[in-house]
Amino acid sequence: MSSDIGLLGLGTMGRALALNIAEKGYGIAVFNRTREVTEHFAAEAGELAPRITPCETLEGFVAALARPRAIILMVPAGRPVDEMIAALRPLLAPEDLIIDAGNADFRETRRRSAEAAEKGELFLGMGVSGGEEGARHGPSIMGGGPREAWDRVAPILEAIAAKHEGEPCATWMGEDGAGHFVKTVHNGIEYADMQMIAEVYGVLRDGMGMEATEIADVFDRWNEGPLRSYLIEISGIVARTIDPETHQPLLDVILDTAGQKGTGRWTAIEALMLGAPASAIEAAVGARNLSARLDERKSGEAIFGPAPRGIAETGGLIDELGQALLAGKIACYAQGFGLLADASREFGWNLPLDAIAKVWREGCIIRSAMLDDMAQALAVSGLTNLMFAPSFASRMAENHGGLRAVVARAALSGIAAPALGAALAYFDTMRTARGTANLLQGQRDFFGLHGFARLDRAGTHHGPWADSFQL
Amino acid sequence: MSSDIGLLGLGTMGRALALNIAEKGYGIAVFNRTREVTEHFAAEAGELAPRITPCETLEGFVAALARPRAIILMVPAGRPVDEMIAALRPLLAPEDLIIDAGNADFRETRRRSAEAAEKGELFLGMGVSGGEEGARHGPSIMGGGPREAWDRVAPILEAIAAKHEGEPCATWMGEDGAGHFVKTVHNGIEYADMQMIAEVYGVLRDGMGMEATEIADVFDRWNEGPLRSYLIEISGIVARTIDPETHQPLLDVILDTAGQKGTGRWTAIEALMLGAPASAIEAAVGARNLSARLDERKSGEAIFGPAPRGIAETGGLIDELGQALLAGKIACYAQGFGLLADASREFGWNLPLDAIAKVWREGCIIRSAMLDDMAQALAVSGLTNLMFAPSFASRMAENHGGLRAVVARAALSGIAAPALGAALAYFDTMRTARGTANLLQGQRDFFGLHGFARLDRAGTHHGPWADSFQL
Repeated sequence: MSSDIGLLGLGTMGRALALNIAEKGYGIAVFNRTREVTEHFAAEAGELAPRITPCETLEGFVAALARPRAIILMVPAGRPVDEMIAALRPLLAPEDLIIDAGNADFRETRRRSAEAAEKGELFLGMGVSGGEEGARHGPSIMGGGPREAWDRVAPILEAIAAKHEGEPCATWMGEDGAGHFVKTVHNGIEYADMQMIAEVYGVLRDGMGMEATEIADVFDRWNEGPLRSYLIEISGIVARTIDPETHQPLLDVILDTAGQKGTGRWTAIEALMLGAPASAIEAAVGARNLSARLDERKSGEAIFGPAPRGIAETGGLIDELGQALLAGKIACYAQGFGLLADASREFGWNLPLDAIAKVWREGCIIRSAMLDDMAQALAVSGLTNLMFAPSFASRMAENHGGLRAVVARAALSGIAAPALGAALAYFDTMRTARGTANLLQGQRDFFGLHGFARLDRAGTHHGPWADSFQL
Repeated sequence: MSSDIGLLGLGTMGRALALNIAEKGYGIAVFNRTREVTEHFAAEAGELAPRITPCETLEGFVAALARPRAIILMVPAGRPVDEMIAALRPLLAPEDLIIDAGNADFRETRRRSAEAAEKGELFLGMGVSGGEEGARHGPSIMGGGPREAWDRVAPILEAIAAKHEGEPCATWMGEDGAGHFVKTVHNGIEYADMQMIAEVYGVLRDGMGMEATEIADVFDRWNEGPLRSYLIEISGIVARTIDPETHQPLLDVILDTAGQKGTGRWTAIEALMLGAPASAIEAAVGARNLSARLDERKSGEAIFGPAPRGIAETGGLIDELGQALLAGKIACYAQGFGLLADASREFGWNLPLDAIAKVWREGCIIRSAMLDDMAQALAVSGLTNLMFAPSFASRMAENHGGLRAVVARAALSGIAAPALGAALAYFDTMRTARGTANLLQGQRDFFGLHGFARLDRAGTHHGPWADSFQL
């Protein structure tokens, strides 16, 4: 019997997704370049094995699929995707669908979509979030490409996706690279979310001198309130974990140099290209970059001595930290959804912002209680900024004081809080009708005769220095 | 008689540069697509006219040049440059040199350099800073391309360049795009430098309620001390300027929406691609982007009300603001020179950091007293961070307290200070041996099994949760 769908590339994510598909009752053919990987996977599949068809050759893999075929690629982003498409296409009929479910750069997905469209072939770019655990038991799925191609595989994708009160977290976002772009922004927000938690951890640890397990208690408490989210939950779990080898808190033996796979950086770069604010994400990417410069940081501490750090008066600080996280998170998501709106205009996608918030409610790393409210807020048309939606404006009004207090205390105590600081500066900029860019415009006109607009009349104007701008 | 050099493109920068060259005693042929522009330029050249040869055709322009020829392109960046090269090359001999002196993306300069090298042609990419005024009376010149090509035109370029105690601010930076890259970073630093001044202006105006002319006094005073720089100087001039029409301070009638031509953004993007910290520049680019969202900011103020702003206790605040600018500036330049070092490794340039500081001492927008000291500090080999050089470490040690105080007060008062905040967070991160990325690594291992390094042993490790990572 033919398989309902094929999956190519049995790395950790591919294996997890294939098992998820089989578990939901679909027949799936799988292929991996290294035959042993395929065999091992099939042998370990247990009770799901009957629905899995391991294939030894690409030809056999294609032949095992029901027509019109649908093939999920789960290979490393970049050249491997192009190579697999090139290898597959001669074996396929035009109506067969290739789905790139890897971590593609959305610009590459746009290129591949255009190439496929030109040849009359079907191609989807699909962002999958939730890590291995999500892929195995219910990821958040963000699709991009021809709507009819999405609709054809939607039943399978909705079956394997995470559910929020029964609603599947699998949504078609728009044409070509829309799905991969949404996934990229998800990851950018993830960076910022994690970084803000790390900054709060820094204040708790270095400012207040708390032990990891005490910090775990704080995270656990927050996870019962408006901050409830996967990232806060796992921060509590991680902070409470004891290293089996040293019997110390695990956090205290982990080196403070963070890795990254690039999607946070991509988000920041795209935001810059679009002129969209993403300062909290930029700060998070920057913090990871700096964390890797361990020797340089050690030199810095040797030269300047340790920061003062200790925060003497700690009354109410833990509550303020919670408020700071809440306000910072809203500002960060306001940037993220603003970036999506700007990209939607730029690339002609008509991205459904509320549906994006919905698809992020479960399955993905940034899933949180707040995203359900965001989905509601973003469904109201004409909203220019998430922070301005009544339900979030009131949260910002209640919590920005805590964000201020934390940013100020961190600054005075030598505890770096770049993402929280960026979030606050973003809020303060966006609630200030009269900013300070008039000085920039005065400077620019002075040295480059760039001209400026005036408050009291239309047109472009120059300062009196323009008269002496004789060459 | 043949002209020593040719210049193509008589926009404001082109005209200024041509007059500068003629004034230094060189014969220069000029050409512009629109004949009237060329004629008008020649007619207005006054006593310099005898050294200027206006040309009506490209052929005539090429024929007017002494061989081997050297032609400066001063046309808009992008396609116009490629079009002019394509139009010119058939008229030239292989040993003739084309110099792109526009605001090119250094990656385009790299491409054009490679194309020229392939064909055995000579091409230089040259960054020119200082605006029209600089171009006319002495710009800062940053060259990139074949060293022998640079040497051939160096006498002219050094003659027209700004001088610092007799030393010309015109330097060969390295192969291909090195010159344009250095210029790009210059502009990125310029953005950050301007933004930090604007933030201080915001505290003076909104926090302390000072009038523009009082603020001008502060800038003027700072310009007599270690902050002495062109940007502080012109900030004082701009702040003191009275609008001839309304008789109000000009600053108070200029709209607070800043324009940008893209080089600050390019710098931030390149820094992200290289993984180099550039948070102060990112903050400055972001602030300009947000300044343009005037309606959104007005909505924000309508919703949240005006920020508290007033800083009640102002004792010592002006001094702290000066310290904040000084420390912020050093941190920002540390990022800029770090970015240059990283790019130098990435692109194989061997950029001379101390020579870059020297070339920025005069002629360009960011010229300042401090750059002379930076040139000395950067000449010492093995320096990993400008902030760590003894002369700058002592300044940071003396002034970071003021930066802290200002960032904290701005945060508490609702005055956005994103660049100063980013600079402080950078300093605090780089002087902290034990950061908080251990939590990020714990989170990443928990949800994605990415692994982490340990403080107490080598290798990649996982938390105990890895055991339950059964798929």
